[in-house]
Amino acid sequence: MNVNVKKIDGSSALRSAELADGPLTGLRVLDFTTVVVGPVATRTLADYGADVIKIEAPEGDLLRKLGGASRSSANSPKFLQMNGNKRSIAIDLKSPEGQEIVQNLLKTADMIVVNMRQPALVKLNLDYESVCAVNDKIIHCTLTGYGSGGRYHGRPAYDTIIQGVGGLAACNERAGGEPRFVPLVLADHLVGLIAVQMILLALRARDVSGEAQKIEVPMYENVVRFVLEEHMGQMAFEPARGKTGDVRVLEPHSRPVQTSDGYICVSANTDKQAHALFEAIGRPELKTDARFATVSGRYSNVAEYFSIRNEALREKSTQHWMKLLEELDVPAMPYNTLEDLFNDPHLEDVGFFSQLEHPDEGTIRRMRLPNTLSAGERRNPMPAPRLGEHNAAILSEIGVGLEEQADLAERGVIASQ
Amino acid sequence: MNVNVKKIDGSSALRSAELADGPLTGLRVLDFTTVVVGPVATRTLADYGADVIKIEAPEGDLLRKLGGASRSSANSPKFLQMNGNKRSIAIDLKSPEGQEIVQNLLKTADMIVVNMRQPALVKLNLDYESVCAVNDKIIHCTLTGYGSGGRYHGRPAYDTIIQGVGGLAACNERAGGEPRFVPLVLADHLVGLIAVQMILLALRARDVSGEAQKIEVPMYENVVRFVLEEHMGQMAFEPARGKTGDVRVLEPHSRPVQTSDGYICVSANTDKQAHALFEAIGRPELKTDARFATVSGRYSNVAEYFSIRNEALREKSTQHWMKLLEELDVPAMPYNTLEDLFNDPHLEDVGFFSQLEHPDEGTIRRMRLPNTLSAGERRNPMPAPRLGEHNAAILSEIGVGLEEQADLAERGVIASQ
Repeated sequence: MNVNVKKIDGSSALRSAELADGPLTGLRVLDFTTVVVGPVATRTLADYGADVIKIEAPEGDLLRKLGGASRSSANSPKFLQMNGNKRSIAIDLKSPEGQEIVQNLLKTADMIVVNMRQPALVKLNLDYESVCAVNDKIIHCTLTGYGSGGRYHGRPAYDTIIQGVGGLAACNERAGGEPRFVPLVLADHLVGLIAVQMILLALRARDVSGEAQKIEVPMYENVVRFVLEEHMGQMAFEPARGKTGDVRVLEPHSRPVQTSDGYICVSANTDKQAHALFEAIGRPELKTDARFATVSGRYSNVAEYFSIRNEALREKSTQHWMKLLEELDVPAMPYNTLEDLFNDPHLEDVGFFSQLEHPDEGTIRRMRLPNTLSAGERRNPMPAPRLGEHNAAILSEIGVGLEEQADLAERGVIASQ
Repeated sequence: MNVNVKKIDGSSALRSAELADGPLTGLRVLDFTTVVVGPVATRTLADYGADVIKIEAPEGDLLRKLGGASRSSANSPKFLQMNGNKRSIAIDLKSPEGQEIVQNLLKTADMIVVNMRQPALVKLNLDYESVCAVNDKIIHCTLTGYGSGGRYHGRPAYDTIIQGVGGLAACNERAGGEPRFVPLVLADHLVGLIAVQMILLALRARDVSGEAQKIEVPMYENVVRFVLEEHMGQMAFEPARGKTGDVRVLEPHSRPVQTSDGYICVSANTDKQAHALFEAIGRPELKTDARFATVSGRYSNVAEYFSIRNEALREKSTQHWMKLLEELDVPAMPYNTLEDLFNDPHLEDVGFFSQLEHPDEGTIRRMRLPNTLSAGERRNPMPAPRLGEHNAAILSEIGVGLEEQADLAERGVIASQ
């Protein structure tokens, strides 16, 4: 058999030798999303070379203000992180002229990512069928709170809502006694990562078949699956053999362990590692204790296992244990606060932090992409865009003249900061 | 310009019309990984059609026992979730015959995913250069704890270690006062999702260029970036304008809110939503209170904002608030425990849970893929494999006869449960 990866013509065009900014060089993404889930997905596409056009309403992405203070008050720290490498155009989508601009941009796009509800999409001619009518090779990704076909579909969804209904807060209740959110916008951030997978799978399918692709990514179902992959526990069996939960992970003693002068993280999972840990803490007799000798034994007696470990490590310093455990090949690392990360020597070695200039905010801190890939990544990183920063550039690309642009600005069809 | 997505020949072969099991139909993945981070990545590839061959040591993936009890004790619930749709071959990689089998399999593969350290890889001829020597179109993905080029490279890494050193436990310290892990194997699970992105980006590059691709995915750097994208806070600026952390997300009052008979999750972010919430709780005067009238105002006074909300909601039932907030278009959902998820009507509507037969465990519970994609997904889901379940099938495919297979089994080169 031979792979028929079809030649794709039209605007998405690139040549293999031209993947200069990574595997997605030459692909254009229209991004109508706001806050975190969509923006983190499209930023990843931008990091690997896609030309991501962030299409904002004249008032701008809510995250510009919702994610913390800044010098200009127009670009929160979280907004800056989630929107690097994109261009921004700010359009009144409800105006006929705004609609026309979008339709012209759609003809040049490879992908569109939206997180509006279906009626709003239809009204703006951004639903899959309408978009296909102007671009029959489009990859159309809808991010939604709850999947179509289920009764919650169309309900509004924000991160904490999904954490609460989707089982993330429940993990904290099981481990700590009361429902709490994970103190990250974890549902949004996770689903954003998953959306990238779906978009790249669709791109593969389009590269092979040449056909348009429709994607739906519901936050709720993704989070439930993420949680239950880990914590279905004994309900993985029918009939259930017991209750949900991986007791080892939910065990309250599973935590950074206090030493005499700080915290340390230790993870002795294999028999070899656990036996070495028992040596290190001066309890070699546990190696032949049926409760702790084997993986299954330690799993069944996890509270006692972790508790013995935690008691013992309290006696000496972090440095003492790090040295000893390293010698014995027991996985261990010191605990880092958020502030510590900025002084971490390994991160320094790999050039993790660097600087970038932002027109409003001055010098901002940039993190490198953590992963390396033969095909490379975007060469010249751009800071997150100002609202409408690229109005002129983008409109010129689709043939809107300067005079017309001025007129559109005057009438409020396009806006900028 | 025209896209030159090159024809790929050899074993990876498929025709466009033959993407019957999703976009990765016809691609073969050799998976040498264990526990969570690798397996969750390759399972995703398998879900979308790749032929994932899980290559286990004769003692099997540690997660078979580390992830909870089961009827047979050989397939923990977590193992079952992370390894569906794969085939297993159990080989002694250190034996010359085992090496030969792997080399023959490599010739037929599109991708290889490993999480061994570099010296072990070299010893087994599984490092990038060695693999390229037998297959110059391979996509080679190494999952590592800490990136090469930094001083922690080569150190062992498990989920809790990375949570502790990488800032996830630190988020809990900031929100709750003491370092705690998120009660999920979150670092592993996250990085597994990210690895899929990298593999699919590399596949795109290979489809375009026809060239082999090398990927490195370090857990530590990925987790640090994930955490700091959210919580770099005022250290996003140089010089720093203050400390790390998105105070809104770290705020202790940001939690599922107690009602008179349970919990509810409410997220009023825009002015319209917040003002409607103030109406709902009988505090319309807050709409014009400078502290709470705007997004920025509420961000700066988040503790008080959440605290007023939490106090008010305690007075009436979850059902009362759900009805009222829905009428006012304020995003809200009830809180679900892990057990509740199995009775959730929306999940029932979308056919989220179904059943599958496992040879050792009997009937097991399966979750559907949350996302939909025009190009489809694997049609016939398979349960996670028994150890060495597909020894015979896979060896036959590379021309090892039945007699030779029996001999290999006798000498312990291949193993099965």
